[in-house]
Amino acid sequence: MSAEQVTSGISAGAVPSVMPVRVGVLGFGGLGQAAARVLAPKREMIWVAAADKKGYACDRQGLNPDACIAAYSASGSLGYLEPAGALSSNSIGDLIERAEVDGYFLALPNLPNTFMASVAKQFIEAGWRGVLVDAIKRTSAVEQLLAIKEELLAAGITYLTGCGATPGLLTAAAALAAQSYAEIHSVKITFGVGIANWEAYRATIREDIAHMPGYSVERAMAMTDAEVEALLDSTGGLLALENMEHADDIMLELAGICPRDRVTVGGVVDTRNPKKPLSTNVQIAGRTFEGKISTHTFTLGDETSMAANVCGPAFGYLKAGVALHRRGIYGLLTAAEVMPQFVR
Amino acid sequence: MSAEQVTSGISAGAVPSVMPVRVGVLGFGGLGQAAARVLAPKREMIWVAAADKKGYACDRQGLNPDACIAAYSASGSLGYLEPAGALSSNSIGDLIERAEVDGYFLALPNLPNTFMASVAKQFIEAGWRGVLVDAIKRTSAVEQLLAIKEELLAAGITYLTGCGATPGLLTAAAALAAQSYAEIHSVKITFGVGIANWEAYRATIREDIAHMPGYSVERAMAMTDAEVEALLDSTGGLLALENMEHADDIMLELAGICPRDRVTVGGVVDTRNPKKPLSTNVQIAGRTFEGKISTHTFTLGDETSMAANVCGPAFGYLKAGVALHRRGIYGLLTAAEVMPQFVR
Repeated sequence: MSAEQVTSGISAGAVPSVMPVRVGVLGFGGLGQAAARVLAPKREMIWVAAADKKGYACDRQGLNPDACIAAYSASGSLGYLEPAGALSSNSIGDLIERAEVDGYFLALPNLPNTFMASVAKQFIEAGWRGVLVDAIKRTSAVEQLLAIKEELLAAGITYLTGCGATPGLLTAAAALAAQSYAEIHSVKITFGVGIANWEAYRATIREDIAHMPGYSVERAMAMTDAEVEALLDSTGGLLALENMEHADDIMLELAGICPRDRVTVGGVVDTRNPKKPLSTNVQIAGRTFEGKISTHTFTLGDETSMAANVCGPAFGYLKAGVALHRRGIYGLLTAAEVMPQFVR
Repeated sequence: MSAEQVTSGISAGAVPSVMPVRVGVLGFGGLGQAAARVLAPKREMIWVAAADKKGYACDRQGLNPDACIAAYSASGSLGYLEPAGALSSNSIGDLIERAEVDGYFLALPNLPNTFMASVAKQFIEAGWRGVLVDAIKRTSAVEQLLAIKEELLAAGITYLTGCGATPGLLTAAAALAAQSYAEIHSVKITFGVGIANWEAYRATIREDIAHMPGYSVERAMAMTDAEVEALLDSTGGLLALENMEHADDIMLELAGICPRDRVTVGGVVDTRNPKKPLSTNVQIAGRTFEGKISTHTFTLGDETSMAANVCGPAFGYLKAGVALHRRGIYGLLTAAEVMPQFVR
């Protein structure tokens, strides 16, 4: 963000002259594991800490994604990893206390809706200072975070919310595209997601089901794997979603782009095919200062996975968050207000 | 950028609770006049100052675009505007001294290449503090600004460069889109511009001609209107441009996205038809962490004019720049590093 950073961008060349950012990942399902893989080749970041429900692992020299994923897959928790792991019924709390981390990516389930805010409170109560980034989905979950923004500010935490694909990358693209217009008429996000096997994303798929007509968060969470399987059998593995409660709306409203009711999110998830059923895109329609009506479109390449479009932006925002934190800028920010930095 | 701003975004509602940002525009050709029209309906900004080659005008209550454009069109300078105008052979210097302005949009000709940097130096030498935003085009012109970045920092000036359409909106879209990838292979910007009458954009068209094979900046600047007319007659009014020297490349390199040689800019300008000859777009190709090759695309709506896509972003960056300046963040930044804010 600063002139000094511009300087370092020029002078540093291929070898960063500063210490890598120490990164933690909370949650080690499909998204957390993808995050570990995304981080592995980065020179500007080092993955030093992770936690799941039953345990955690930390190593200031860096965690090995293969070893962590193997331990988790074999035994159900990072706590079984030797020698960096430990089992704990308070895994997040223990990790916050033990690991030296500049920023955490909260790759946690979005449900219940209060979960992300409750984790943020754990950081506040522990007296931890640093950067937190989430890939939260629902508007009401962001509202839970807004309710504690003064506490985040006072605690010296720079919390960036909605930093995945949508909300996240597509929301930021909408905020950027809005610049051409005097007034924004609509922001329409349509996503296509293809995954080979829903069981790798159990939490994410339940979150999607909760958006379907006749389902609620509670009902989706209470479904057994067999019930999810049966539902997917009845739809040929497809989940079609319309008018979803997605935080893109509140984020664009907070950024001053447009009232939240002009933002709509929908899409199709294919749980049996890694190929996307449609190209994910956001269309930003508005009126220019000359009175012309037009639409800008940002379309993601079909070959980019959900994991790439969530984890890449999340770490880009984490890097930007670290720059803000070092400048003493704390509190709650959204992906629509900050330009993510590219993590090399 | 801050938690406080998030708060004000929520609490302020339709009526901004803070004083509008006082804006000046330097240069009053096609771009400067469009800038005045873009600013007119904004509640968060007030247009209080402008200068052209021969004079300037300033009014802390706000300048009237119609009156300014009428005075300029009738007599060739804002200096003839009654009672806010004054003729001056040192119009920029006089305006800096007389007007109270938070941020200037430098809607100045890009030629000669050293011009923007020389204007920035005028601000530094005058001891002025505030935000400067340009819609500069050439890589070498940004290099001139990089040479004085320490001086800008020391002067307490927050200078945002390359904040038009390209570089600017499309460069920022590329920086954002890059987040999905582990490595960026290419950024390809292709623009279509349609203008009804080249004479409204004399300086811009000469800049474009300078990019054509066989032409140089010096040769294009030395062309008479009749010579430009003759050239356009020979091409049916079209200017086809390839591998242009465009600052998108250095801006994306500075932001750490990719080496500058992976960035290409080209396009077609139709000087006799306001309809765009092709849809302006940027394609960002790269490799994801899983090894997939893909391309994101950001496409501007054809009905958005060059003026809308340059002036809108410029003022969005100016607003973001004011927030940075108030936090004491000075120096040289580019459009690829900062999220512009939406100006209402």
